[in-house]
Amino acid sequence: MHEFCFVYKSDPVRGRQWAEVFHEQAPHIDFRIWPDIGDPERVRFLAAWTPPDDIATRFPNLEVLFSSGAGVDQFDFNALPADLPVVRMVEPGIVCGMVEYVTHAVLDLHRDMPQYRRQQQRAEWQPRQARLAADRRVGVLGLGSLGQAVLAQLKSMNFDCAGWSRSQHHIDGMQCYAGSEDLAGFLARTEILICLLPLTEATRGFLNAKLFKHLPMGAGLVHVGRGPQLVDGDLLAALDAGQIGDAILDVTDPEPLPAAHPFWSHARIALTPHIASMTHPLSAARVVLDNLRRFEKNEPMDGLVDRVRGY
Amino acid sequence: MHEFCFVYKSDPVRGRQWAEVFHEQAPHIDFRIWPDIGDPERVRFLAAWTPPDDIATRFPNLEVLFSSGAGVDQFDFNALPADLPVVRMVEPGIVCGMVEYVTHAVLDLHRDMPQYRRQQQRAEWQPRQARLAADRRVGVLGLGSLGQAVLAQLKSMNFDCAGWSRSQHHIDGMQCYAGSEDLAGFLARTEILICLLPLTEATRGFLNAKLFKHLPMGAGLVHVGRGPQLVDGDLLAALDAGQIGDAILDVTDPEPLPAAHPFWSHARIALTPHIASMTHPLSAARVVLDNLRRFEKNEPMDGLVDRVRGY
Repeated sequence: MHEFCFVYKSDPVRGRQWAEVFHEQAPHIDFRIWPDIGDPERVRFLAAWTPPDDIATRFPNLEVLFSSGAGVDQFDFNALPADLPVVRMVEPGIVCGMVEYVTHAVLDLHRDMPQYRRQQQRAEWQPRQARLAADRRVGVLGLGSLGQAVLAQLKSMNFDCAGWSRSQHHIDGMQCYAGSEDLAGFLARTEILICLLPLTEATRGFLNAKLFKHLPMGAGLVHVGRGPQLVDGDLLAALDAGQIGDAILDVTDPEPLPAAHPFWSHARIALTPHIASMTHPLSAARVVLDNLRRFEKNEPMDGLVDRVRGY
Repeated sequence: MHEFCFVYKSDPVRGRQWAEVFHEQAPHIDFRIWPDIGDPERVRFLAAWTPPDDIATRFPNLEVLFSSGAGVDQFDFNALPADLPVVRMVEPGIVCGMVEYVTHAVLDLHRDMPQYRRQQQRAEWQPRQARLAADRRVGVLGLGSLGQAVLAQLKSMNFDCAGWSRSQHHIDGMQCYAGSEDLAGFLARTEILICLLPLTEATRGFLNAKLFKHLPMGAGLVHVGRGPQLVDGDLLAALDAGQIGDAILDVTDPEPLPAAHPFWSHARIALTPHIASMTHPLSAARVVLDNLRRFEKNEPMDGLVDRVRGY
């Protein structure tokens, strides 16, 4: 007999992979895929990318809301019951995918690959002098688990790394800048800028003309945060002015990006459809089950969101 | 007073950087840049990419020939005095550059970047399911210092790695295939094939239709060995047949590749102008000075070529 119900409301193909993990590792849980929710009063847990608008009335006994992805910025916190715990997805697949994507992007810019691709289009054989990674200054905006994993990988490849975040962090052997007073100095030393900030009201429009001006001329941008953090027109102007040399974007606003948007055809923008890091359904389900066990034992859940900070 | 003369015959811009290092660290050596060779009888050492045709008669007292780059396949060994020691460039910059290039290329193929670039040209937002590095089988042909450094890096990123070379190697925690009898098995398990073989008579034309057929359908090729190892027409046929999915080439035959060559405009070939790894002039000069000291003390030089094997 099932003790209670866990509802999954996201991509149904992934949902079926979650179902297998739950069935095998937690057969006492009635795992259901939206819209087949059964008796809503029995639903204690919901995993969703976008929760239903009427979440509070529809699920009167809901105890935890899990995001099915790394971010929670898609949630409207005002529409959620104030005391409902919200949990981000902290899953190893997300970290590995992001480290791979950013390592590729940094090497792409570091080794002049955008220029070599343009030269290939002109059938032009023109070697350029490469620089040593140790002489290449890379900077990461955002020092959460993803930002720290990315910095560790880039440092292991000898890049000259630094990080910036709103609050002071201490990371062994890493130069950490903090707060708005440090931002200009961090940007001035950064030739390849990686944005891994969470989307909050404070970071909306963060990547704008004023910020770009503090970077050295021709700096590279790798944007793997959230689309609304970037002011699209400011990036286009910075590319035209040579302030930004090349940009690699995995996030846009909106997503999917409309086919008429100028980013698609810009010669110095590489655009991927929000694929830098994706949860792997099997390990995501295991992470959620692990958090359910912590919850039942009154232990802190991994990825519990501070609803004041918004992440 | 200078004791003897060291002649540098390669790119003169780099030569001037070598000159600075020699001047500072070995002022007793008369360092000269070709064609300003002074008295040829005083020349005991020559560093060159291509030695002069009349090397034996022109420099009667030559004691060592250094290659100014990683390879020695540009040397015509039959035209060199039989007992002249020949030394390859073994320099940390070469290894770092190669590790960077191959890591970028493997991530490019692993994360479907060639497809995403084609999708961008069509303004098509279409995420593809990523695979875990641990499930991606990467194989390196050639287990010299470059091959081993590349494998160590890829293994640290969780790729499922193996290596092949002509003779048996033993590398901790790495599956090593050896000889022609193991080649088909190595290729059958390899989804991304990296060629780091030296150019010898045995490896000329090695990357051909017969070899490609042993790979899984749609495998990726990263060619960072030497141009003549690849049979161009066989690669084009393998791409057309879908046997090879995408190819990343840093070497061609000839170099520079003529503008009319079909590789330039092929949608599934990425071509760079032999830039994967380059010697850094300053550290190259230091490595050569270190080898001179070993030579004077009758110690074995780093990179001494076995002229029977040809590398």
